[in-house]
Amino acid sequence: MDFALDDRTRQLQDRLLAFLDAHVLPAESVLAEQLAAGGDRWARPAVVDELKAEARRQGLWNLFLPHSPAGAGLSNLQYAPLAEITGRSPFLAPEALNCSAPDTGNMELLEMFGTDVQRKQWLEPLLDGAVRSAFCMTEPEVASSDATNIATRIERDGDGYVVNGRKWWSSGALSPHCELLVVMGKTDPGAERHRQQSMILVPKDTPGVEVRRGMTLFGYDHGPHGGHAEIVFRDVRLPAEALLGEEGGGFAMAQARLGPGRIHHAMRLIGMAERGVELMCRRVVSRVAFGSALAEQGVVQEWIAEARVRIEQARLLVLKTAWLMDTVGNKGAHTEIQSIKIATPALAEWVLGKAIQAHGAGGVSQDFPLAELWAHARSLRLADGPDEVHRRSLARRELRPYRDAARTA
Amino acid sequence: MDFALDDRTRQLQDRLLAFLDAHVLPAESVLAEQLAAGGDRWARPAVVDELKAEARRQGLWNLFLPHSPAGAGLSNLQYAPLAEITGRSPFLAPEALNCSAPDTGNMELLEMFGTDVQRKQWLEPLLDGAVRSAFCMTEPEVASSDATNIATRIERDGDGYVVNGRKWWSSGALSPHCELLVVMGKTDPGAERHRQQSMILVPKDTPGVEVRRGMTLFGYDHGPHGGHAEIVFRDVRLPAEALLGEEGGGFAMAQARLGPGRIHHAMRLIGMAERGVELMCRRVVSRVAFGSALAEQGVVQEWIAEARVRIEQARLLVLKTAWLMDTVGNKGAHTEIQSIKIATPALAEWVLGKAIQAHGAGGVSQDFPLAELWAHARSLRLADGPDEVHRRSLARRELRPYRDAARTA
Amino acid sequence: MDFALDDRTRQLQDRLLAFLDAHVLPAESVLAEQLAAGGDRWARPAVVDELKAEARRQGLWNLFLPHSPAGAGLSNLQYAPLAEITGRSPFLAPEALNCSAPDTGNMELLEMFGTDVQRKQWLEPLLDGAVRSAFCMTEPEVASSDATNIATRIERDGDGYVVNGRKWWSSGALSPHCELLVVMGKTDPGAERHRQQSMILVPKDTPGVEVRRGMTLFGYDHGPHGGHAEIVFRDVRLPAEALLGEEGGGFAMAQARLGPGRIHHAMRLIGMAERGVELMCRRVVSRVAFGSALAEQGVVQEWIAEARVRIEQARLLVLKTAWLMDTVGNKGAHTEIQSIKIATPALAEWVLGKAIQAHGAGGVSQDFPLAELWAHARSLRLADGPDEVHRRSLARRELRPYRDAARTA
Amino acid sequence: MDFALDDRTRQLQDRLLAFLDAHVLPAESVLAEQLAAGGDRWARPAVVDELKAEARRQGLWNLFLPHSPAGAGLSNLQYAPLAEITGRSPFLAPEALNCSAPDTGNMELLEMFGTDVQRKQWLEPLLDGAVRSAFCMTEPEVASSDATNIATRIERDGDGYVVNGRKWWSSGALSPHCELLVVMGKTDPGAERHRQQSMILVPKDTPGVEVRRGMTLFGYDHGPHGGHAEIVFRDVRLPAEALLGEEGGGFAMAQARLGPGRIHHAMRLIGMAERGVELMCRRVVSRVAFGSALAEQGVVQEWIAEARVRIEQARLLVLKTAWLMDTVGNKGAHTEIQSIKIATPALAEWVLGKAIQAHGAGGVSQDFPLAELWAHARSLRLADGPDEVHRRSLARRELRPYRDAARTA
Repeated sequence: MDFALDDRTRQLQDRLLAFLDAHVLPAESVLAEQLAAGGDRWARPAVVDELKAEARRQGLWNLFLPHSPAGAGLSNLQYAPLAEITGRSPFLAPEALNCSAPDTGNMELLEMFGTDVQRKQWLEPLLDGAVRSAFCMTEPEVASSDATNIATRIERDGDGYVVNGRKWWSSGALSPHCELLVVMGKTDPGAERHRQQSMILVPKDTPGVEVRRGMTLFGYDHGPHGGHAEIVFRDVRLPAEALLGEEGGGFAMAQARLGPGRIHHAMRLIGMAERGVELMCRRVVSRVAFGSALAEQGVVQEWIAEARVRIEQARLLVLKTAWLMDTVGNKGAHTEIQSIKIATPALAEWVLGKAIQAHGAGGVSQDFPLAELWAHARSLRLADGPDEVHRRSLARRELRPYRDAARTA
Repeated sequence: MDFALDDRTRQLQDRLLAFLDAHVLPAESVLAEQLAAGGDRWARPAVVDELKAEARRQGLWNLFLPHSPAGAGLSNLQYAPLAEITGRSPFLAPEALNCSAPDTGNMELLEMFGTDVQRKQWLEPLLDGAVRSAFCMTEPEVASSDATNIATRIERDGDGYVVNGRKWWSSGALSPHCELLVVMGKTDPGAERHRQQSMILVPKDTPGVEVRRGMTLFGYDHGPHGGHAEIVFRDVRLPAEALLGEEGGGFAMAQARLGPGRIHHAMRLIGMAERGVELMCRRVVSRVAFGSALAEQGVVQEWIAEARVRIEQARLLVLKTAWLMDTVGNKGAHTEIQSIKIATPALAEWVLGKAIQAHGAGGVSQDFPLAELWAHARSLRLADGPDEVHRRSLARRELRPYRDAARTA
Repeated sequence: MDFALDDRTRQLQDRLLAFLDAHVLPAESVLAEQLAAGGDRWARPAVVDELKAEARRQGLWNLFLPHSPAGAGLSNLQYAPLAEITGRSPFLAPEALNCSAPDTGNMELLEMFGTDVQRKQWLEPLLDGAVRSAFCMTEPEVASSDATNIATRIERDGDGYVVNGRKWWSSGALSPHCELLVVMGKTDPGAERHRQQSMILVPKDTPGVEVRRGMTLFGYDHGPHGGHAEIVFRDVRLPAEALLGEEGGGFAMAQARLGPGRIHHAMRLIGMAERGVELMCRRVVSRVAFGSALAEQGVVQEWIAEARVRIEQARLLVLKTAWLMDTVGNKGAHTEIQSIKIATPALAEWVLGKAIQAHGAGGVSQDFPLAELWAHARSLRLADGPDEVHRRSLARRELRPYRDAARTA
Repeated sequence: MDFALDDRTRQLQDRLLAFLDAHVLPAESVLAEQLAAGGDRWARPAVVDELKAEARRQGLWNLFLPHSPAGAGLSNLQYAPLAEITGRSPFLAPEALNCSAPDTGNMELLEMFGTDVQRKQWLEPLLDGAVRSAFCMTEPEVASSDATNIATRIERDGDGYVVNGRKWWSSGALSPHCELLVVMGKTDPGAERHRQQSMILVPKDTPGVEVRRGMTLFGYDHGPHGGHAEIVFRDVRLPAEALLGEEGGGFAMAQARLGPGRIHHAMRLIGMAERGVELMCRRVVSRVAFGSALAEQGVVQEWIAEARVRIEQARLLVLKTAWLMDTVGNKGAHTEIQSIKIATPALAEWVLGKAIQAHGAGGVSQDFPLAELWAHARSLRLADGPDEVHRRSLARRELRPYRDAARTA
């Protein structure tokens, strides 16, 4: 057992932290100004393009992709501490590094399951940061946590497919740069539970695709990142070559996509929590009430200590999960992947809630990033299934040997 | 001891509930449409004017005002259950009934401390719902919970006053209907702690008044209600008659304004929590996951039961506080007024958080009122001082006899 | 609505508080000494007898009994604040006043359902404090919260009954003063669910009754009060006249017994919480760490304030429940009775836990009453069914109208 | 970074788990019987001696001691997972393995700071398990978390020392096997803060030593392990050679003793939490209520999942702390040592509280080990300073750079 990061990871950490300090954090207020200046709510503000160019120049680009020549060749365990750093500014840094969801997951899918033609058409411009993509999975009418519930149909029709259905929370889809929709639907509702689904690549400008509106998260539309779209697919016709992987392979591909995505989200949440601690500490040493700095108040000290204790524990669990993914794969890391899905959004929500409290009314406003970070963390307790679903599933696995023993006894 | 509401209160409850069901709740989606249609972010949507007219027609108007012929003559204890009902739709119902903060508090101030001329000029159109007003107390640079910290100056200058300072969270001030700013500032920084402050009536269009921007609460700007303004006062000149009450009376007036306002807020929060329970229950009986309605899940049942148990307790405490205010006055109800300030925002936050969780990703979006209600409740944990300040003060009062005893011993 | 206690209640409060201060609280250390001196673990220490005599002399005796000439004629609402006061010293005061569970509930049963002979034989000496009794309901093998689960049999046999079964947590039964066991069992397992059970009066010295051992609560055996017994009934023969009420009436009698018992327990828990606050406050003003009294620490202040806010709410809910019991009866108060069962043990546990923390290691020891009070409160979260059972039941009632509406829609 | 345990540790884990299953867990009920049989409350029951002999036979003896030929030469990181296993039966396993506090810490002190004579006299029989020892640090009158508060005096007098003072919570001292008291006191109250204290080795039978009574933890006296003594030292004369280390070295020695002790405690708490999960799972698969096994209830599943998620995080943090101790020493692991002191008792308390709840009233009784485990975990939140002291200290360290930056700015 060894808790030291390897040299390469440490060097990348240093470079990334320097990039954050020098470029990303100062860009946050620029972004706010560019947004306040109005214009198309969904257009990418200029500052994001500048950051992308700078990250690329510094070689901090596509760090997430382990197995492709386009990526940095980092293991999950090596990439995780870098993802954490991007979490300190989650509305700018991941996109700047071309490492933002859902593009990362979609690129991984294309890399693993795409044909040469699909990779040429979509993976290359995505790796290049020239276009963006969305992942259309969640549906308004059904519990999103269960892939077998999906109602969207991908039906064979002659030499192609026809897609019909309604999706929402398709993140990024409102961006004019988003050209690709990876759509999950059922090709064979009569097949075995986990062989009913397929994925298909839908150019956003295909007739029948209607991007209807953006969903809000506690009042935030996440505009510059392309929002969270509700999309209706009405008789959307696609050639057979648009199918990703094989028919019936949708569920397995979603699972393959899931593991690394959870690590990325979890580590960014750790980073968001660290940002919360940092802002809280900075605030309380300078803000005076009742004759002394807030930092002198026992209640504030409790928050800070508790935040530190919780963050350290959660980070170690995510790192161990990444290590398990690298050594025994998705399946062997099942309990841990679920554990970090449960633990990290709640952690970040808690820490950011305390940081808000330490900022008074300013904390809920646009004058600090805390409220928006909080809303993001809170939403991640629901995205991909609410906590309760994951706890239920984890508990059932934990109980299995006891049930078996009780049965035998 | 008697826990039954009197007949008049019960009759008003019935009429108000009927008004909510028939007019206010259906108006919520109309409001959303009128806002989505765009136009001036701060203008009052037509649906609000219609509700105001209807409430007036039904005699559900100015119910809050106890001692004026214009009011309904209700005690705090009688008005409290009505305020609760308006809390079920807090962005529409209070304004529809001309019972929304900060107008209610300002009207009470004018009624208690205004001259005949001031009442004629401001109280009458406010009671009439023709104009609105803002209360300018909180300042960005200092802890808002301590009135003695106020930096804004109201300086005597010849036969008038000159106001200089910066305020924020002046709710409603961005509305074009808002014509009056009640401003708290220091007339004599050298006086005894609680005699330094005065209040002055500032017409919003006075030269030197700059309404700079609206603050957001999480991502909500609370637009239709007139937002939460940052306002700069630069050499704002006013005649001597603009002063409300006497010089040095600002702190005492603020205290007098405080008690009833806390009751109103607390009861509306109870109503918000009830709305959360209602939406949660409605959702979980109809939403199916893993083969049964969410209502069958033990975790959801725990939320509902716990919500009921907590709400009942909090409501009783607010009602007792109202009763104390009616019988022994603000001072005798000090501990209880502080207690409901601590208890009710946290209660509503908790209940609404669970209701959101029961709604999945929809819960954080614009498709349900939950996220906006939550953000409102969360903000009320900070408005008028964070929880921690109130707990600290309450604890010190609780400890006083023990300290005294320890000293004597 | 009126939150003032009536004059009679207030006078009794004053007298009872004076009795506590003058006699009961000083007796706590005497009790500890008499117990430490050894001897029969289950015998009643002399100090208890002295307190009983004094209470009787002062007319503070059998205050709980509303409808009997032997009682004080107090309503539930009037008795509740007195029960609270006894909760400040729950291992001495209730017994001193002849108002301790399970005797109170048993006396109520005898008064309502006993024959003249039964009342003569058992109620009179109980009211007189000459004997004590136990209530044998809970069984080790089944969920105690469901009376229909009961396995103990009361079988008709010739002109009498034969009892067989195993009970535990029969409080008080280890006391040599305990002469009567009120036993719940099934007379007709084939009858309708709530007509299967009966109650029978079993003299403890009946052949076949074996008081096997005392159960501990976190290491406490609750010795002086008679402990919590496990009792085996083996072919225990009783005459027909030993049956209490009618055959099949056991469930209804248990329900009738339940309501007032819950009020008593809940109010005593409020009193226990108040004792916790008092000890905590006294401690923190005198204990110095890191250069100032603990009372100066923000964390401690948070505990005290939060305790006050929670206690006030819980007390009001119990009082309202008592009022409902008096005005609309057990059934109309169903939700509230359940609510106070959920709320008050958890409240007392929380407050006492903080008080312990404020006392450092001393808090868990015999040098303060806190640890034993805590263990008692914690156990009351389980006695008569764990919280979860009550929350589940309460939630189902709350959900019923929504389910019905969903079904109709 | 590598999360795999090394081979030696894994082999020892296997052997230790087998020892637990085959010998220790079955001995728990034997211990209960031997204690119930009465006799000297503080004497070591025979079953403990049998376990000691068996552990020794199997070579599972003195595993904790890293640097001595008598120990197993394990690093902290290697020993930690073994300490966890002993935590599953903390009132038997550690003593069986001669790895129980406070003997372990005292042996480390003697090994590091003892003279040859002292090691011969005390370390050898301790390593041999022939005698036991106590550590006399905490005092009733002062905050035990601050070594500079100590009031006990160790005064030079001629060619020896005289000890005067009062200690409590001297664990193990009531055992007849306990022959050595390691006493902390002040030799020079006028010296620099951390040079005032010394330690001295006091044979328990020295005149002037009065072991006064055992403290209880909730209702447990921890009898078989030797209890928790209050001890008065009245003019206790000792030769100069009884001093451990140098005069003024007491504080530094206490610090050196602290780190490993915290790791041991923390890992045993992890083991206690695991025992709680295990008992809870076993219970809920077999116990039926309302028609299905408790394991089917969502609330119970939440407890189990949450327990798993929390335990995994805490264990990783303790392991990392052990690794830091091994690689950078006590000082470099300061924050982490404090973090595990904060995190692990609270974790075990939480998990065991849920396990108790799942066991109903049985959970608080002697029929399951849960209540006693809980009381132990709860007490460890206070031993060596309450949580609040550690959080305060940790927060101050976290805030330091921000304070410095604020000062410079």
